[in-house]
Amino acid sequence: MTSKKVVELFYDVVSPYSWLGFEVMCRYRNVWNIELKLRPAFLGGVMQGAGNKPPGLVPNKFAYMTKDMNRLAKYFEVPINPPSDPFEVMFEKGSLSAMRFVTAVQQIEKGGDKQVERVSRELWRRIWSEDKDITQPQSFSEAAKKAGLTDSKIEEALKLCTSQEIKDKLKHTTEEALNYGAFGFPMVICHIDGKPEMFFGSDRFELMANCMGEKWLGPTPNSSASKL
Amino acid sequence: MTSKKVVELFYDVVSPYSWLGFEVMCRYRNVWNIELKLRPAFLGGVMQGAGNKPPGLVPNKFAYMTKDMNRLAKYFEVPINPPSDPFEVMFEKGSLSAMRFVTAVQQIEKGGDKQVERVSRELWRRIWSEDKDITQPQSFSEAAKKAGLTDSKIEEALKLCTSQEIKDKLKHTTEEALNYGAFGFPMVICHIDGKPEMFFGSDRFELMANCMGEKWLGPTPNSSASKL
Repeated sequence: MTSKKVVELFYDVVSPYSWLGFEVMCRYRNVWNIELKLRPAFLGGVMQGAGNKPPGLVPNKFAYMTKDMNRLAKYFEVPINPPSDPFEVMFEKGSLSAMRFVTAVQQIEKGGDKQVERVSRELWRRIWSEDKDITQPQSFSEAAKKAGLTDSKIEEALKLCTSQEIKDKLKHTTEEALNYGAFGFPMVICHIDGKPEMFFGSDRFELMANCMGEKWLGPTPNSSASKL
Repeated sequence: MTSKKVVELFYDVVSPYSWLGFEVMCRYRNVWNIELKLRPAFLGGVMQGAGNKPPGLVPNKFAYMTKDMNRLAKYFEVPINPPSDPFEVMFEKGSLSAMRFVTAVQQIEKGGDKQVERVSRELWRRIWSEDKDITQPQSFSEAAKKAGLTDSKIEEALKLCTSQEIKDKLKHTTEEALNYGAFGFPMVICHIDGKPEMFFGSDRFELMANCMGEKWLGPTPNSSASKL
């Protein structure tokens, strides 16, 4: 009998590559012998803490990333459709409040992480598929409703997400990511033989599988992809 | 009958990720229905032309890349063993003369590119496996000898590599890479339905295969890997 390997996924809904990584890991949680832990964190804090710069500031790189993202989204079957002004969305509006809301949902949820998973997905869908706001309470409320949360849970999360407790929790998770060596998201930490193995980005799944003694079956290993 | 798709591989022997990409593409040239064209170019010129900065300047990123490189090298079966001072090797010594030498070998070679392939591999082996110099004529000569070139061919290439013709050719190839949108190496251009599709890095082979209607069989699809 082999026990499940703990795999932590650090992500932020402001990051489209995180969405790809998130969907793949959510699909593989039932394929590989792993216990997936969702770790919503704040990408802005990681970039600042690591002294990293957004990759899209080099024009050739930005043009490539747009193209690459479209190809990957199609291949991964994740409905990414960039917002009209990605710079405004990513760097001016940001995701601090949104990630506090996700953290609050996680804090409230008992016995699993289905609600965190669904709320995260609906926030990504708003920003990276439908070009909708993810900075206002009304937006969090709409996303959570779509994710299937009850009105009372939504109200509870909205209240909680501005509390010091949740601000501190998000800060703490972000610091944990930095302590693991993060410089961007998505970042996956696979605990293998008691050692944390870090994988950055949404293009190391085949290598990750190899390191865990699992098999990579491509980005859509089962029918869960069709739900998106 | 389907005609082979032309696939251009832009690379520089100063770049270890280029080595991974190079070996994979050389292995797949006989697996996929492609005509691989080796395009030795100058990474320093691409970085400057695109206004890009080396990724290793962020400490967390550098630490990750070292780890990532070791894991990938093992998985790809490419004997990468970082030099004692990678910064000196990459940024102080550089690869301008080495890539001129590779360009000269390509200029001289008739009917194929086996010599360019082998000389490039031996230069990578010197810098990224054996921590040896790749800036001096003696080093080029040793690499070319290992690659199986005759003494007279080596002498011819050594003479040619300082000529204006070869300097211009390398410059031209580097400009072509920039015109395709390069901001780093390895860069692969797949000509699909008359359109150039760009793939950056050594982590898009599965996507590349998908775009070309080919199948990705992992980094070691046949026994050629054992030759390294």
